[in-house]
Amino acid sequence: MKRLTVLDMGFIHLERRNQPLHVAYLTLLRPPADAPPDFAQTLVARLRSYASPLPPFNQRLESRLGKGFWVEDPEFDIAQHVVHLALPQPGTMDQLLAMVSRMHASHLDRAYPLWRTYIIEGIAGGQIAIYSKVHHAVADGVAGTRLFLRSMSLNPNDILPPPWAVPPQGRRERPSGLLAAPVDGVVKLAGRFGGVVEHLPTVYRELRKARQDRRDGNVDALSGHQAPPTILNQPISASRRYLARSYPLARIKAASRTLGCTVNDVMLAMCSHALRRYLIDQRALPSEPMIAGVPMSTRRDKSDVGNQISFLLANLGTHLADPAERLRVIRASVEHSKQRYAPMKPGAILGFAAAQMLPGLVNMLLAPKRGRLAFNLVISNVPGPRSPLYWQGCAVEGMFPVSVLADGMALNITASSRADALDFGVLACRRTLPNVESLMDYLGDGLDEIERLARMTIAVGRPVPMLEGEPTAELEVLSPAASEPAP
Amino acid sequence: MKRLTVLDMGFIHLERRNQPLHVAYLTLLRPPADAPPDFAQTLVARLRSYASPLPPFNQRLESRLGKGFWVEDPEFDIAQHVVHLALPQPGTMDQLLAMVSRMHASHLDRAYPLWRTYIIEGIAGGQIAIYSKVHHAVADGVAGTRLFLRSMSLNPNDILPPPWAVPPQGRRERPSGLLAAPVDGVVKLAGRFGGVVEHLPTVYRELRKARQDRRDGNVDALSGHQAPPTILNQPISASRRYLARSYPLARIKAASRTLGCTVNDVMLAMCSHALRRYLIDQRALPSEPMIAGVPMSTRRDKSDVGNQISFLLANLGTHLADPAERLRVIRASVEHSKQRYAPMKPGAILGFAAAQMLPGLVNMLLAPKRGRLAFNLVISNVPGPRSPLYWQGCAVEGMFPVSVLADGMALNITASSRADALDFGVLACRRTLPNVESLMDYLGDGLDEIERLARMTIAVGRPVPMLEGEPTAELEVLSPAASEPAP
Repeated sequence: MKRLTVLDMGFIHLERRNQPLHVAYLTLLRPPADAPPDFAQTLVARLRSYASPLPPFNQRLESRLGKGFWVEDPEFDIAQHVVHLALPQPGTMDQLLAMVSRMHASHLDRAYPLWRTYIIEGIAGGQIAIYSKVHHAVADGVAGTRLFLRSMSLNPNDILPPPWAVPPQGRRERPSGLLAAPVDGVVKLAGRFGGVVEHLPTVYRELRKARQDRRDGNVDALSGHQAPPTILNQPISASRRYLARSYPLARIKAASRTLGCTVNDVMLAMCSHALRRYLIDQRALPSEPMIAGVPMSTRRDKSDVGNQISFLLANLGTHLADPAERLRVIRASVEHSKQRYAPMKPGAILGFAAAQMLPGLVNMLLAPKRGRLAFNLVISNVPGPRSPLYWQGCAVEGMFPVSVLADGMALNITASSRADALDFGVLACRRTLPNVESLMDYLGDGLDEIERLARMTIAVGRPVPMLEGEPTAELEVLSPAASEPAP
Repeated sequence: MKRLTVLDMGFIHLERRNQPLHVAYLTLLRPPADAPPDFAQTLVARLRSYASPLPPFNQRLESRLGKGFWVEDPEFDIAQHVVHLALPQPGTMDQLLAMVSRMHASHLDRAYPLWRTYIIEGIAGGQIAIYSKVHHAVADGVAGTRLFLRSMSLNPNDILPPPWAVPPQGRRERPSGLLAAPVDGVVKLAGRFGGVVEHLPTVYRELRKARQDRRDGNVDALSGHQAPPTILNQPISASRRYLARSYPLARIKAASRTLGCTVNDVMLAMCSHALRRYLIDQRALPSEPMIAGVPMSTRRDKSDVGNQISFLLANLGTHLADPAERLRVIRASVEHSKQRYAPMKPGAILGFAAAQMLPGLVNMLLAPKRGRLAFNLVISNVPGPRSPLYWQGCAVEGMFPVSVLADGMALNITASSRADALDFGVLACRRTLPNVESLMDYLGDGLDEIERLARMTIAVGRPVPMLEGEPTAELEVLSPAASEPAP
């Protein structure tokens, strides 16, 4: 029996009918060439044979005297957690995404351990999809990725136990320990059902300072109340629209090298282009630039094995028609944000967690003026593996994050890097954002635009002007089980 | 715009995370012999072509100043309501029931009209399944059946519009009007989130009278606090186990004729046998008889076109090992209950609705002694069509009701009669009632037992002794669209 941290308890109490607080991954697998027709069925049977999971996967929530505890479930039933599904004919990717949208809208049952893995067959072309969800009180996105990677291998013939059966010695710290431990002392959620923050977190003070910077004349500094109201910032329904697409990492990296910026900058520029186009279609583009909250995992020094997580505010420059100008604005605001928040570890960690999970709460804290927001949406980039990986004998052909929405935050864009691709997962409120499917095409158009910009830069022989500053951080790269010794 | 009745608003407010308040039907269809492989896909496309539904199917809930209203949804999107699914391999009935269990556990999104129809292909043997759910604030089980029947035909070549597109002139009263109107003046749910009943309904007074009867020495009268505590009467999880099986109506009718009792009595005896066996397996059989709450639709006179709905308490005699003795107890208590409640129309209607929906509330009202219940579970028998029917060109081979659970009421047994079968749908809390699958086999054993009893009766040449009284009521029979003129 283990008491829930204050932060994890917050994830339980802040869950709403229209706001489930679980995170997930949609993984696309390519079965071996000689796989028999009942391959998926055999896979489900094998996964279900791991019927005695290890903590936290065998623990369920129990409330005693108003406090939350994780207790081992003596009646653990693997059939509740490993579910076999199939797409109907003709088995298109659109049908798969519609299915994931429905599954992600559905709550986990608190009477059971808070995770579930679906194995989906029937995809035209022969792939198998895994939709794997876990409550945020159990694990966050980064920890979830780590755990999933532990069950993956560089070798197609290696069949490792699934995440819930990876022995503790082969596993890092308990997933949310990463976030929970340092946060515990920083923030307390008061009241059983409110989620009122007693102690203002460091991130709040820091963002206040940024506002002062701005008053002092630094145009690239972002204050905490600069995001304009948009159609993204409305109450949400309980229904979701999930979209996923991969873009070649080689294209993104080549453009970033030519333009002298990071992969993250290019990703933000793609999002900026897509948002601008989408909001023009919807006749809802604000005249002021939209602001993204960007949780970022950075590592400046190879010797630094710990995590440095920063929470940045990025000016997306969506009001600017010129892509070069937009990229300049994005890079300048990210650079400023990085310098501002680099020393802010515990608060930044909270910022990361809170922005992932409770954007409404963060907005409330950061935007004291009614109707003004700290940011319009969360855009994140979860670092993934650099090498091609295999899971249960299948090549991993996609690892798309499925994140969280909240009232006032109807869109989330999360990408995950993988070997040669950047896998984008876009989660939207189905009702609030009509025709949001077009955003995916616009992300691709955004990449085309960046590449045109890079070609122009080569043609004129000089990079797009940017701020002076230290070299930008690279993405941290997580490693699969087989390529990294257990700690 | 139309205001919700007090009863319908109760169904909204009393919904909980672990207690969704929608009802559903699982319908099994046999496509025509010459159906092409993409038959289900074509069916989904045809159903989606009815994209402008009629009230109440185009209305969503809106709260204004604490009151609930049905308002037309100007952005109605048929894709949210008609969903295409498939079973994974090998496509067994168990897989279908597991899928229905998961779907029934999932809430409808209140931002949209509160109904959804799933078309499920991939069943081994070639059937197609329809799982069709509607919130109880929109329609109750009987009204839902009527509406569904309106879109069915006696002729396989007749393809009628689906329920949401049946024109008003061909439809009866608004579904829940049946229940809502007379109840409005009888009961008021006070407080926005409580569900406290201000005016004690008639059913309460009547049951109090029954308790007096019992004190006066009538052993067949059931008081309102006679149900023993059982494992069925515990808090429930949010997960469900749904089971469905058909039994030949001819067998049930033959046995009831020989034994001189009704189809309902035989159904209750089957349930009694199954519950007794299941609770013996679980080492949880109470020494006192279990009591069922039985909403019953009766019609004594062919000329009476209105509805007479009674809510009965039936002593199931689960403490008795002898099947003849059990049947006698069931028949006697049902007979007494019928005579008691026959004149009680508005209250009985409330009893029907409340017992279907709010057994916890009814129990609270009827069982003032702590720990004593008015009944242990709800068993109902929804009258269906007498003739073989077709829907969208497919023969209907099963119409299984999927009802509602509530805290303290972890099991529901609802049967629906259809042409030559009685279709049983059993809904259980997945966590509270382990191995509840065995109940289905035990229902069959229960029917075998009744038939043995009937054979013995024939052998000895006299019926099982029962109470004197008027002839027992027969089930009301609902009619499909094609066989009945519009009112």
